[in-house]
Amino acid sequence: MKSFKEIISQAQNKIPGIAAAPGIVIGKAYLFTKEKIEISKAPITDIDEAIKNLNEALAQSKKELQKIFQIAKEKMDDTRAGIFEAHLMILDDPVLLNTIIERIKKEKVQPEFIVADEISKYQELMIISNESYMKERAQDIEDIKNRIIRNLQKKRLHSKIEDGVIVVSETLTPADTLLFSKHNSLGFVTDHGGLTSHAAIISRSLNIPAVVGTHNATQIIEDGRIIIVDGFHGYVFYEPTQEQINFYSEKQKRLVELQKGLEEYKDKEAITSDGKKISVEANVDVSGEIDIVISSGANGIGLYRSEQILDELGEFPNEEEQTTIYSKLASRMYPLFCTIRAFDIGGDKFRFQDYKEPNPFLGLRGIRFLLENETLFRTQVRAILRASNHKNIRLMLPMVSTIDEIWRSKKIIDECKKELRKDKIEFDNKIKIGIMIEVPSAAVMAKDFASEVDFFSIGTNDLIQYLMAVDRGNDLVADLYQEFSPVVVRTIHHIVQGAKEFNTPVSLCGEMAADTLAIPLLVGLGLDSLSMSPATILYAKRIINSFSYKKAKAMAEECLTFKTQHEIEERIKKFFEENKITRTRNII
Amino acid sequence: MKSFKEIISQAQNKIPGIAAAPGIVIGKAYLFTKEKIEISKAPITDIDEAIKNLNEALAQSKKELQKIFQIAKEKMDDTRAGIFEAHLMILDDPVLLNTIIERIKKEKVQPEFIVADEISKYQELMIISNESYMKERAQDIEDIKNRIIRNLQKKRLHSKIEDGVIVVSETLTPADTLLFSKHNSLGFVTDHGGLTSHAAIISRSLNIPAVVGTHNATQIIEDGRIIIVDGFHGYVFYEPTQEQINFYSEKQKRLVELQKGLEEYKDKEAITSDGKKISVEANVDVSGEIDIVISSGANGIGLYRSEQILDELGEFPNEEEQTTIYSKLASRMYPLFCTIRAFDIGGDKFRFQDYKEPNPFLGLRGIRFLLENETLFRTQVRAILRASNHKNIRLMLPMVSTIDEIWRSKKIIDECKKELRKDKIEFDNKIKIGIMIEVPSAAVMAKDFASEVDFFSIGTNDLIQYLMAVDRGNDLVADLYQEFSPVVVRTIHHIVQGAKEFNTPVSLCGEMAADTLAIPLLVGLGLDSLSMSPATILYAKRIINSFSYKKAKAMAEECLTFKTQHEIEERIKKFFEENKITRTRNII
Repeated sequence: MKSFKEIISQAQNKIPGIAAAPGIVIGKAYLFTKEKIEISKAPITDIDEAIKNLNEALAQSKKELQKIFQIAKEKMDDTRAGIFEAHLMILDDPVLLNTIIERIKKEKVQPEFIVADEISKYQELMIISNESYMKERAQDIEDIKNRIIRNLQKKRLHSKIEDGVIVVSETLTPADTLLFSKHNSLGFVTDHGGLTSHAAIISRSLNIPAVVGTHNATQIIEDGRIIIVDGFHGYVFYEPTQEQINFYSEKQKRLVELQKGLEEYKDKEAITSDGKKISVEANVDVSGEIDIVISSGANGIGLYRSEQILDELGEFPNEEEQTTIYSKLASRMYPLFCTIRAFDIGGDKFRFQDYKEPNPFLGLRGIRFLLENETLFRTQVRAILRASNHKNIRLMLPMVSTIDEIWRSKKIIDECKKELRKDKIEFDNKIKIGIMIEVPSAAVMAKDFASEVDFFSIGTNDLIQYLMAVDRGNDLVADLYQEFSPVVVRTIHHIVQGAKEFNTPVSLCGEMAADTLAIPLLVGLGLDSLSMSPATILYAKRIINSFSYKKAKAMAEECLTFKTQHEIEERIKKFFEENKITRTRNII
Repeated sequence: MKSFKEIISQAQNKIPGIAAAPGIVIGKAYLFTKEKIEISKAPITDIDEAIKNLNEALAQSKKELQKIFQIAKEKMDDTRAGIFEAHLMILDDPVLLNTIIERIKKEKVQPEFIVADEISKYQELMIISNESYMKERAQDIEDIKNRIIRNLQKKRLHSKIEDGVIVVSETLTPADTLLFSKHNSLGFVTDHGGLTSHAAIISRSLNIPAVVGTHNATQIIEDGRIIIVDGFHGYVFYEPTQEQINFYSEKQKRLVELQKGLEEYKDKEAITSDGKKISVEANVDVSGEIDIVISSGANGIGLYRSEQILDELGEFPNEEEQTTIYSKLASRMYPLFCTIRAFDIGGDKFRFQDYKEPNPFLGLRGIRFLLENETLFRTQVRAILRASNHKNIRLMLPMVSTIDEIWRSKKIIDECKKELRKDKIEFDNKIKIGIMIEVPSAAVMAKDFASEVDFFSIGTNDLIQYLMAVDRGNDLVADLYQEFSPVVVRTIHHIVQGAKEFNTPVSLCGEMAADTLAIPLLVGLGLDSLSMSPATILYAKRIINSFSYKKAKAMAEECLTFKTQHEIEERIKKFFEENKITRTRNII
């Protein structure tokens, strides 16, 4: 059978998009087009009648939304369902309602025109904002607007919804997504939307595979034809070949097989057959993912990417706002711990300054940026400290490359602690301070850095990029981004050995941790914990339970002598065979 | 006294430009404006008379140029003087002359108009070319054009040239530059022109400080006022403050002092007081620099940047052309050796493909590019081999990051050798193959790579960038580019130790080699050779002769234990004091 790489590179019929919710589905496409709403600007004579109609439409809309909110609460957790509660709140906004009523009285035109006009104003403001978050919220409001107008026009909602299909649409509102899920939709494909769109978040929480942001799937895909949705990699195949169908059916089958007995690992520890415990932790992008983390069987959050807050909010929250966010996180995770990484801004993430750096990956990123923008850093440190009184928060610094950066950061943290003590604000005085090891210089200096901090977390994604001088986003050189390169293996070994001199625990939070093929090697190299996407945690736990540390260590030592990636990969595969471990790589 | 950094950052009266010829000069500015040439398009009646005039003007121009060529041959070496020989050849170009005569006959206008028009056509073609080389050559031709026209107009050349001044001009032709040097010009400042302009090359070879490409120096600087030209760093100061004058006078004085007794090192070896020989080699950018190299006291060329040929020619030369270039190089250098680095294309150097990489420093560069463009690589390898029969050429591969790249390159080299043997073409069968160590992965794999190649050359400029994840061209983070970082010291140590296991000699060819403060540390770390800009070679030799390897080694070992750049720098400074070595850093 062909590899995934071959399937993808040979496919002429693939539509690339954003992998919004994992899973594979092969099924009939259902092109969903919303009824176009016509809005009349006709003059009215009876103003009282118009306002009465408006109130009725609002009440009906509210009733509908409350019903959807009920369904949401049944199907999803409270946070997710909260999306619909927020919609209900807009319907009750007195300023908005008052403006609409005043304009009806003054302009004497159809309420539907005023409603459309007023709500559109809100949307436009959101759309011209540069933040993806605001753009997504503008989409949500579209749903409310259309709902009120439809009810003003006294039209019933008759979206012809088919059962058991893959819904292909330009956009999907959270309500659409939910409604379709009631009709057992197999998957979702949309032209617009990103990873943080509510439709994407809901798909993930409903466990329905989704690919969003395809740009033109609705123009390419024909209604009623078979398509394949690969929610792991973000591809849709139209008019799939028999080979592609076979490949993905096989994948689905293996997926089902692999999932057998997986649930039992939820409450089990990740422990090798000879008793070495590994902490398996979760990487968290969006705050909405906390429920998934809690139900994933993770030992804690190994990496909470706090800069995602900026993406979601579109601005820097102040100390109070941040304290609320982190406190909520900490209490929901309790008694599990949560490693909050200070804002990692710069590079490909959230550009703050206007200056365009010629090589952003070699620029003002992570701790460099924070130390240059100290007020911002202090605000975050104070908020994290204030949220730490459950004693389950750890603070992690990104992109550290010199010991001075550690000293300067620790000085700032100490000063923040002093201030809080002075203000009699409680916090965890022994809060653990760790650093990301993702710049080669930090790897070289591992021993020295280990004496300064409480824990390490190796960020293999960036570390490999810098070690190999390869931008993995650059197709011209991407094949040099090798996670099984002898360079990577030796560097991880060097970091772990340096850390051990000061008993500093070492975690690994790059994509390598989620690559199940890498797990025995990483355990063998002496890592104490692995942090990965929640979806892969149970697989990792099962693998860790299926070999002995002693054997993994011997295998890792052998790998340290190899000169090529190929030799190392072959040795690891042999290890899987010898220990009869099912390989799950390339499946999830 | 303030540091150079302080002087520069505080100066409001600096004009930045390109450091074209090293040295410092404080003196009177002489604004040189060429007489504007008026060209008449008046009709003529006597065609024979016009052609006679043309021939006389050409003969007179030739006479003048021959005289300049004579001066050039006295003042400069043959290669440089060759610039003027090339000008003479244009005057003899039968196609050009024929076209001009035919047009005079046909159009019946003043020959000066036809001459100006025809030569301008050549120039325009050169100017629209994107290559800096062609643009520079267009400037050269301007001189010939004006010379012929002036002679047609029977005007004598009366440029009022003052003695002992700093010439400030929009542009300078090679002839101007030479003529001014006869009048003891102290320095040159031009608005236009680059490092490879003939005026720049001539300034360097005449040892007259020059800053070119200032854009608007002629508009800012007033005639007759004192200015300072810093040809080391590429700055001109107008209306200098007393502090600036004092600073640069002091520098000049120290420069003179430092140069005392320096010449005697030309024929001395670089050898420590306890007998360890260090090979001090030259980095070569432009082929015109070979004479400087030969007279610099270098033990050979440690780095010949072959991609500069592309910059000079504006295209890829074919195998014959390359063979000629490399053969000439090899025979001129003989018996000294010459390390030709294969084209290092990509990154900031000579962009070949249209695709703009988001992080060019992490992209398709060096050997990666060559292995992707194998025909091009094979052409160069064949040319280098064909030029190697003096047995003084070494071949070096840039940007190596995996052992596969070495294997693939060696296979290609072996195949080229086989082809040449088959064609009965002589070459050095034992030609030494080395690699640049400039990617962290190569440093990590030093031992393994050492078993595969004949020599290493550490490229600290790039290596430090990748190790620290810092683009040194990016002002926002440039202070993290630390050549005395413990990371750099430990990494060089690791490379040398790895190389020693296979007796692979290690050179260092980054800017660090030319930093005289770094030399005892580098020698102490066990480097076998240092390759640097020719101007610094004698300083390096003198320093190496002034300390013992044993002490340097002990000092280096101490530096390996430090955690900060500051500690290392202080230790090195102490070493200079202990051994009574004059520090030359920041002087040259």
